Amino acid sequence: MPHESEIYLDHAATAPLDPRVLDAMMPYLTGTFGNPSSFHSAGRSAKEAVDDARDSIARVLECRATEIVFTAGGTEANNLAILGAYRSYREKGNHLITDAVEHHAVLHPIEHLVKKEGAAATMLKVDRLGMVHPDAVEGAITEGTVLVSVMYANNEIGTVMPVSEIGARIAAWKAAHGRKPTDPPFFHVDACQAAGALPLGVKAIGCDLMSVNGSKIYGPKQVGFLYVRSGMRLEPLLYGGGQEGGMRSGTENVAGIVGLRKALTLAHEERERENARLIALRDRLIAGLLAIPKTRLNGHPTARLPNNVNVSFLDIEGEAMILHLDEAGIRASTGSACTSASLDPSHVIIATGLPYEAAHGSLRVTMGRATTDSDVDRLLTALPPVIATLRKLSPVKLDMKHYV
Amino acid sequence: MPHESEIYLDHAATAPLDPRVLDAMMPYLTGTFGNPSSFHSAGRSAKEAVDDARDSIARVLECRATEIVFTAGGTEANNLAILGAYRSYREKGNHLITDAVEHHAVLHPIEHLVKKEGAAATMLKVDRLGMVHPDAVEGAITEGTVLVSVMYANNEIGTVMPVSEIGARIAAWKAAHGRKPTDPPFFHVDACQAAGALPLGVKAIGCDLMSVNGSKIYGPKQVGFLYVRSGMRLEPLLYGGGQEGGMRSGTENVAGIVGLRKALTLAHEERERENARLIALRDRLIAGLLAIPKTRLNGHPTARLPNNVNVSFLDIEGEAMILHLDEAGIRASTGSACTSASLDPSHVIIATGLPYEAAHGSLRVTMGRATTDSDVDRLLTALPPVIATLRKLSPVKLDMKHYV
Repeated sequence: MPHESEIYLDHAATAPLDPRVLDAMMPYLTGTFGNPSSFHSAGRSAKEAVDDARDSIARVLECRATEIVFTAGGTEANNLAILGAYRSYREKGNHLITDAVEHHAVLHPIEHLVKKEGAAATMLKVDRLGMVHPDAVEGAITEGTVLVSVMYANNEIGTVMPVSEIGARIAAWKAAHGRKPTDPPFFHVDACQAAGALPLGVKAIGCDLMSVNGSKIYGPKQVGFLYVRSGMRLEPLLYGGGQEGGMRSGTENVAGIVGLRKALTLAHEERERENARLIALRDRLIAGLLAIPKTRLNGHPTARLPNNVNVSFLDIEGEAMILHLDEAGIRASTGSACTSASLDPSHVIIATGLPYEAAHGSLRVTMGRATTDSDVDRLLTALPPVIATLRKLSPVKLDMKHYV
Repeated sequence: MPHESEIYLDHAATAPLDPRVLDAMMPYLTGTFGNPSSFHSAGRSAKEAVDDARDSIARVLECRATEIVFTAGGTEANNLAILGAYRSYREKGNHLITDAVEHHAVLHPIEHLVKKEGAAATMLKVDRLGMVHPDAVEGAITEGTVLVSVMYANNEIGTVMPVSEIGARIAAWKAAHGRKPTDPPFFHVDACQAAGALPLGVKAIGCDLMSVNGSKIYGPKQVGFLYVRSGMRLEPLLYGGGQEGGMRSGTENVAGIVGLRKALTLAHEERERENARLIALRDRLIAGLLAIPKTRLNGHPTARLPNNVNVSFLDIEGEAMILHLDEAGIRASTGSACTSASLDPSHVIIATGLPYEAAHGSLRVTMGRATTDSDVDRLLTALPPVIATLRKLSPVKLDMKHYV
């Protein structure tokens, strides 16, 4: 039986390229192909495109163009922030602060530094809604803290972190301890999921480093950038031709950078209207899902990304649910795509206090520009029989009262 | 005056995207946009595209698909090979061997390891034709050598290195010193300029690591791969979702990888015919340029990339020549684009023994698929008056007999 049209509800894993972004990229995939480091006019045209993109992106972040370092995506931006700052400021201290619900592209470089490069890390807990508390951040800072890394919004459960307040607390700690604003501890914000939905002004947030990638905002894959506050120096991950102010060598991905610029500026311009539309869809979907018995909302009910819904259905196995939905033409996920190769339940949902046996049945629905009311209806129609079938097969019968 | 059509003769800096490569990429820039790590069918379609690309590329290298690690370009592939092997095998030794004419994406990570991570490096000299001698490599190996890094072909002067013989000498040293073939020293070959022109069978070369990038073979920018012989482990540069067998985290650049596959397979299929065509153009251009007084050929006359011409004109300043040619619609370079921001003469040409004052007037012409006999004629017509004008302005009058 040919099923109905596909519904893609996994925008947090990756979003389609916006046709307007592809249009912006096409001249750089065809005629204007020079190497921006070349002296001749083909090189200069490419360099101008990269420079213009840097200017536009800086306007969205309310920073200087020279503070934008282009990278090959969000993983590299996070790694450059963490490994680069630690290796560069190692003589100032070895202490790092992060939290239990960060993306693996933040947690794993920190684990590496602890295992192999002499770092000590404080892993902050989150509350049941997935929130990191500014008090906890401030309380964890020591004389040897070089970096605090807290995400802007969680990629699995959508909780929006109080990053501006965390920035203010770090600044207050510095003032109280005779440090200059430009001294460590530095504040890194992984904004890969927040970009497009939340304001990115780096001064309002009070961060020194901010990671953004393209593929979550309808831009190309494997292109992103790291905001690096002027005056900070990061030990590079890649050495070579000295591009990006010496912080990131390698011939620039001109078409990708042009696409990233277009994606970010479109998302910035359309943010308020699109957020309002998505929040209405989100809240209707959440209400419909919570009407299914033994269902728990993961993440914060209101301090939440406009496009994110994440629930746990007790007594079911999430991967089976995803495959059933996939057969019905609905693409959703159990959590982060980057960990879906492992069958372990999400480290994020476990960190919010949901026990291992209950964390298995989680569903993440991340909506996008093409998502409509009828898509929400279709999911709300398709899901209850899938849940009922899987629960019949399940040997586990958990008591909901322990899991709310 | 509107000048004639543009002639692009800087393919070693970057090549245009082949329209056939763009055609292959387009489905992955539009419909098939999933994250290869996602469970659902949108993810699986993306994963299949990446897997197929890996299989095709492995056939060109005559290796296993699992030995191909996709990277964001040649700089990252070189850095992963050098930093990754050194950090992973540090307990086996700290000695590295390379040569004076490598790309900065090889030299600079090695310099970093020497300055910051306890490495010792032997920098081999090259002869006047830019060749590294296998005897010199073998003679430099010590009990503590972990890595030898020699490029397949030089990006500036086009000299093709005897990599198979170097591979054989390293193997012979291991046999004579009771080492297994899979023990250090390992052999890394930077094939970024060779790919498309020379055979890439890794077993025939006898290397453990080989870097290739897309933008030099009419593929997309900032996508490449590192061949990593099965059994070798490299400390990653990027930690996160554990993609690429744990050696290179980050959501895969699906469209880029598909483009890289198409670019490499096309180049492989068309190599012999295209090489014959380019060698005829190259040798005619070299003969024409050497007819200009006080001109020296840089690099090897025959063990040379089919598309590479590099000459030094005494008593002129290279950048001025490039700008004059650019005005006439001809895009060429003085050397590597990656170092063109610096006005220092090429480290490669200096390494071949040409003195500093004579190395300034170098011209690199790197031809491509679109280059024709009439392009060669136009360059040979445009250049002599430019040289004559610049020589009139030059305060330097070198004696050719010292520079041949």
